[in-house]
Amino acid sequence: MRPLALLAVLLLAGCNASKDPLPSWNNTPAKQALLAFVQKVTDRSTPAFVPPADRVAVFDNDGTLWVEQPLYVQLLFAASEMKTHAPQHPEWRANPNFVKIIDGPPDAILPLAPADQFAAGFAVHAGRTVEEYSTAAARWLAANEHPRFHKPYTQLAYQPMLELIAHLRENGFQVYSVTGAEIGFVRVANEQAFGIPRQHVIATLLKSKFESAQLQAQPDVLLIDDGDGKPISIQNVIGRRPILAIGNSDGDLPMLQYTAAGPGPRFAALVHHDDPDREFAYDRASAVGHLDKALDAATANGWTILSMKNDWRRVFPNSPQ
Amino acid sequence: MRPLALLAVLLLAGCNASKDPLPSWNNTPAKQALLAFVQKVTDRSTPAFVPPADRVAVFDNDGTLWVEQPLYVQLLFAASEMKTHAPQHPEWRANPNFVKIIDGPPDAILPLAPADQFAAGFAVHAGRTVEEYSTAAARWLAANEHPRFHKPYTQLAYQPMLELIAHLRENGFQVYSVTGAEIGFVRVANEQAFGIPRQHVIATLLKSKFESAQLQAQPDVLLIDDGDGKPISIQNVIGRRPILAIGNSDGDLPMLQYTAAGPGPRFAALVHHDDPDREFAYDRASAVGHLDKALDAATANGWTILSMKNDWRRVFPNSPQ
Repeated sequence: MRPLALLAVLLLAGCNASKDPLPSWNNTPAKQALLAFVQKVTDRSTPAFVPPADRVAVFDNDGTLWVEQPLYVQLLFAASEMKTHAPQHPEWRANPNFVKIIDGPPDAILPLAPADQFAAGFAVHAGRTVEEYSTAAARWLAANEHPRFHKPYTQLAYQPMLELIAHLRENGFQVYSVTGAEIGFVRVANEQAFGIPRQHVIATLLKSKFESAQLQAQPDVLLIDDGDGKPISIQNVIGRRPILAIGNSDGDLPMLQYTAAGPGPRFAALVHHDDPDREFAYDRASAVGHLDKALDAATANGWTILSMKNDWRRVFPNSPQ
Repeated sequence: MRPLALLAVLLLAGCNASKDPLPSWNNTPAKQALLAFVQKVTDRSTPAFVPPADRVAVFDNDGTLWVEQPLYVQLLFAASEMKTHAPQHPEWRANPNFVKIIDGPPDAILPLAPADQFAAGFAVHAGRTVEEYSTAAARWLAANEHPRFHKPYTQLAYQPMLELIAHLRENGFQVYSVTGAEIGFVRVANEQAFGIPRQHVIATLLKSKFESAQLQAQPDVLLIDDGDGKPISIQNVIGRRPILAIGNSDGDLPMLQYTAAGPGPRFAALVHHDDPDREFAYDRASAVGHLDKALDAATANGWTILSMKNDWRRVFPNSPQ
């Protein structure tokens, strides 16, 4: 080959190599394992090839795709809605926890027990139409920011995960969001923060009433999409066992077990929050994003642990590296 | 224009005109209304334009996409499964209706009340994994044929509807199947008969149990996808109000009302079974596919009524015209 032709080849190769689909990831074994998995299941010449219809990837939301500390975003929204709408709901004052939220400071929901926090979330949705509730969620997301990062929550998606979602889609994956939060709020958040469309959001469902051609949420839960509810909801909505699942807490363990137990190539991973400087550091001792049994299971089963500190070059879009 | 050029233009026009997307439909107002609707919502230059994300179309199954007489296919499968598996389920004999099915002729399920028929459907699914049940459904569909048409049920999809589904997809629609039948069976049937993938099937859900990384159906219903349950399930799964809905019975009325009541262009239609020679003729007096209030609502609201006899040139794939 003549020197000029060789130079052209090298330049082209360099150009290709620079097209890293995951530029916000450090070049660690975690990144290499993710890229190798996608490469393997899309290569028709390997026995690990998976037809596009079966390339289903599922991601938890809070703590996996965006910040969940100091509290799940949906519950901060619920507390705000409860304060705003309390005058129209005198019945809320019969619940002492709701009174704490209504009369307390904006963060009065934080010390409540998880079940009481979620009860507030369901109460502010009940009786409202889908359209009303979506509008309220969008308004709140536009008007509020994270207490530490001083940015709208929708700008606190994890940049490495946005890149991974894009890379999976480019390789024929259907990407679903699977969250314990209530679906009315997280559908709006998913569209804005992660570009995941409403029909790919699997979440906790309230019962609904159909009246005068409108749907209205009821205060009763139909199916909690957490723990065992995650694989159950995945089957209800998708009807296929995912081949890739990423979560960050014990509530994600059944989803990871379900994904990992299928035949053929599988990828199960946990985001580990070990980066107090750029985000937060928590696992076994935390109520929000409690990660204990799932961490042991990951170690025992050889699932990938994604260290925020070591594996992510950048945490948020446009944040310093 | 010179004669030869004119001839070429006419030939091309003829060629285009021959590419009728709905060749199994007669050229009646119903067909024209369907084509005009699709044309309108996909034309950026009209105020009726609908962005692709909102082009959601929903179809009932039984009696809308395939034959439902003499009984919903899923229930014929359930009766067959109940006879086969009765020796392993002595507890079924505590239910007098199940005994009729187990000990009676293959069509002993026909005269039972609808609730008892569905109870049999849920009983044969309970306790089995998703994979076991899907395999049984596929085996039954391959081995059984319709008592009158002597063809496998999966070949008794309505050809005009298959063409309509293809035409909608070519125009950026997301097509969902919305049926009162239980989801385990109809997901298999939808894939085989209509080419509708599992994640686009909305149907009645049983409760499920997650154990040893497997999902197992329980005998209790989570949500019946019929009547008001149709718009509720559509919202749970899709999160958008459809712009086109087609059904054929009173169980589809809320879905049609929900679809028709949204803003912008809307298309709601009923299949009317008025063709005893090529299929069946039934409406207000029939228990299977009972069409009474929905027929009145269609007339009152100006929804399209699709006459099988007049609007369909051909009923089944490869059937004579």
